[in-house]
Amino acid sequence: MSVITIERKVLEKNDAIAQRNRQLFQERNIFVLNLVSSPGSGKTSILEKTCQELRDSMNISVIEGDVQTDLDAQRVAAYGVQVVQIVTMGGCHLEAGLVENAMQQLDLSKTDILFIENVGNLVCPSGYDLGEALKVVVLSTTEGDDKPLKYPAMFLNASVLIINKIDLLPYVNCKLDELKGNALKINPALKVFEISCFTGDGIPQWCDWLKKKGASNL
Amino acid sequence: MSVITIERKVLEKNDAIAQRNRQLFQERNIFVLNLVSSPGSGKTSILEKTCQELRDSMNISVIEGDVQTDLDAQRVAAYGVQVVQIVTMGGCHLEAGLVENAMQQLDLSKTDILFIENVGNLVCPSGYDLGEALKVVVLSTTEGDDKPLKYPAMFLNASVLIINKIDLLPYVNCKLDELKGNALKINPALKVFEISCFTGDGIPQWCDWLKKKGASNL
Repeated sequence: MSVITIERKVLEKNDAIAQRNRQLFQERNIFVLNLVSSPGSGKTSILEKTCQELRDSMNISVIEGDVQTDLDAQRVAAYGVQVVQIVTMGGCHLEAGLVENAMQQLDLSKTDILFIENVGNLVCPSGYDLGEALKVVVLSTTEGDDKPLKYPAMFLNASVLIINKIDLLPYVNCKLDELKGNALKINPALKVFEISCFTGDGIPQWCDWLKKKGASNL
Repeated sequence: MSVITIERKVLEKNDAIAQRNRQLFQERNIFVLNLVSSPGSGKTSILEKTCQELRDSMNISVIEGDVQTDLDAQRVAAYGVQVVQIVTMGGCHLEAGLVENAMQQLDLSKTDILFIENVGNLVCPSGYDLGEALKVVVLSTTEGDDKPLKYPAMFLNASVLIINKIDLLPYVNCKLDELKGNALKINPALKVFEISCFTGDGIPQWCDWLKKKGASNL
């Protein structure tokens, strides 16, 4: 029982800091997205494409979360945006306190939109509010169309689903309609984008939506 | 500090049960493998191919671990092997106690080899001993060649690396040599198999190794 009590206390503490983060983001008119997915679904590739498309019209900042290495921060920094890397040293998800600390290293007055790339993990990050405006879950076609049913919490807590690697559909055992159907069964309110970072398909639609949503969020 | 103490106690309790499981498996001459990977790397497809190849020469049992659904157990059961499904109800990894309970539902006298398919998660299952003879980490080419560096604990704790979906190499941004190099940098003792469940490439080598290793393990 004591473990459960401790866990609840950890979550309560996290939620309090997340609420503080959210208030700060709102005061400063910063649109914040928390990107979650399995390892290798393409979160960093999506950020690269998004930075390329939006950097001339919006001030972008990125917080990268990884168990080890700053490889992702290096990739994103190449696009000339502000980046901070959080290394969790084995930790399986980001917490609001880590984000609060990372923000100290960003110039928030030069930030219109902040992407937080969570640790690659389709389970644990779902329960941790970071103070974001919305969670974006990324699922690649190579992972199979059954994943929303098998990992429902993440799809339930997200507002947006990006289906990535649609260029690989001819080569993998994944039915796009089935995947979307399963995701919408878990969460009928999900806004769905179908993209390929390789061909660029769907990237303009995603970025247009970000611009509009970012403007209406303020 | 109390959280850390609780965590250590949870791990100590887990390790004690794992040791009990391991002793039982050894007494009964059962070769046990703990399959770990991200969601969608192909653990279940590998099990399907392995059951197909080995079921005439070995008695196979499978314990399936999932956050939700018994979809994987249904897939594996179609091959006429004993299967038990553990649903963790949100839990991000299997623990030794769950395996101990699941075993009650298996006829161990008719089991030469037991596969435990862990929850799809490249982080959390790495720290939990289930009593297996060895951990097999599966990584698909679609996840990218940098993953061993970004999720080192899993590769460090595994004895075998299966690189799956090698048929997709022409279509994805993954260099096979780089992937293997990164994995062996983390753990030079890893035994590496390169397979495709789609074409069947590498499956005979993997199954031959299982037969030999299973025999020498007894």
